[in-house]
Amino acid sequence: MAAWGERLAGVRGVLLDISGVLYDGGEGGGAAIAGSVEAVARLKRSRLKVRFCTNESQKSRGDLVRLLRRLGFDISEGEVTAPAPATCLILKERGLRPHLLVHDGVRSEFGQIDTSNPNCVVIADAGEDFSYQNMNKAFQVLMELEKPILFSLGKGRYYKETSGLMLDVGPYMKALEYACGIEAEVVGKPSPEFFKSALREMGVDASQLLGETQGSPGWPWSQGWVWGLKQAGGLWQLPSCTSTES
Amino acid sequence: MAAWGERLAGVRGVLLDISGVLYDGGEGGGAAIAGSVEAVARLKRSRLKVRFCTNESQKSRGDLVRLLRRLGFDISEGEVTAPAPATCLILKERGLRPHLLVHDGVRSEFGQIDTSNPNCVVIADAGEDFSYQNMNKAFQVLMELEKPILFSLGKGRYYKETSGLMLDVGPYMKALEYACGIEAEVVGKPSPEFFKSALREMGVDASQLLGETQGSPGWPWSQGWVWGLKQAGGLWQLPSCTSTES
Repeated sequence: MAAWGERLAGVRGVLLDISGVLYDGGEGGGAAIAGSVEAVARLKRSRLKVRFCTNESQKSRGDLVRLLRRLGFDISEGEVTAPAPATCLILKERGLRPHLLVHDGVRSEFGQIDTSNPNCVVIADAGEDFSYQNMNKAFQVLMELEKPILFSLGKGRYYKETSGLMLDVGPYMKALEYACGIEAEVVGKPSPEFFKSALREMGVDASQLLGETQGSPGWPWSQGWVWGLKQAGGLWQLPSCTSTES
Repeated sequence: MAAWGERLAGVRGVLLDISGVLYDGGEGGGAAIAGSVEAVARLKRSRLKVRFCTNESQKSRGDLVRLLRRLGFDISEGEVTAPAPATCLILKERGLRPHLLVHDGVRSEFGQIDTSNPNCVVIADAGEDFSYQNMNKAFQVLMELEKPILFSLGKGRYYKETSGLMLDVGPYMKALEYACGIEAEVVGKPSPEFFKSALREMGVDASQLLGETQGSPGWPWSQGWVWGLKQAGGLWQLPSCTSTES
């Protein structure tokens, strides 16, 4: 415990991943990972600021939070940073109308977005909706654009469900990149912009934390400030978390 | 005509692609490309050796040849070099038992191959069979192997059907490569080995043609010996062909 106390000495807040960290998805919604409900509760009782930062793109934030609360977590929608709302902001800022290749569960997040006459494509972890027909349609939309724009909500390779490993959005992003000869814009982890927006929402100014002389724009995400604490059976050893030092 | 005569002066044989060159696939089997039936007939009447070299992996060679004959082409099964039979040879040589993610139309080519307890994955242009479920199964098989081996029958980005552009096997190969962190072994064009096997079957010794001092193993495929003659409306301007000079 002393070791943890020392390691957390300069830490002002904790960004927690959700899928594979707080719970494993699967039939009936999935199951909480042992120790994670207590860990979140204990973090919230501490002096640390806590925020949840997920690449979950199969569910709306509302559905995700309802599921997590059912599993026993103390969490509210306003505490979650997720790629779908972040993508909607970008689409609005740039006047883009997406063709959506997303799971039905997350479609409601795009309810206020004009999807007529699309001039870009947005893909998310669509699961079973990654059919050949749907992939081909997204491909055709991109090929008809003078300058194809593809947004990918995360670029994860795969994730674990209780039934086994499942392909995430990343492989399908790579498929469309290769087919069209383009590079996708990733919204979600590990994009520094995404982490920074989570920090802003947490009330911690990223620019204060990073310092402009510290290195590349990606720093400190690539330099160890963002570190994972692997679950190893200990009470305070969080399954995995992303922390920011002050 | 004189220009063509000069350009063909040193040419001993012609490798013709099939899909997108002799015909465009689509409903009812597709349609011959204008001029291609006559071009093949004229080549066969000439002094040139002719062979068909395709990455078609949705149909068995038998089905492909029957389709082409119905469209008017003078072609027999023995004149076609295709990736599925070439893959079967490799599997047998290396004692590999594949999990197949292929179109039902080409499955018969693997009829003599042991697919029990798979220790590799073979993907081909599976079309509608590139469902999420089938892709995930192929992914899971690869991840369970100590040393995952993935064969891809070609790596085309897309092809044209009468109804529009269609995703080929290449994007799905990239998806599995990314998901598993591996590199696929491509059987088919543009692999030099595949072209060489077509030359052997044509009765032209590749080593005689290439010369060992001429460059990299990929040479001359990358050096202009393999050139495409784009269809431009002329009688003798083949839609596209791959030729080898002596």
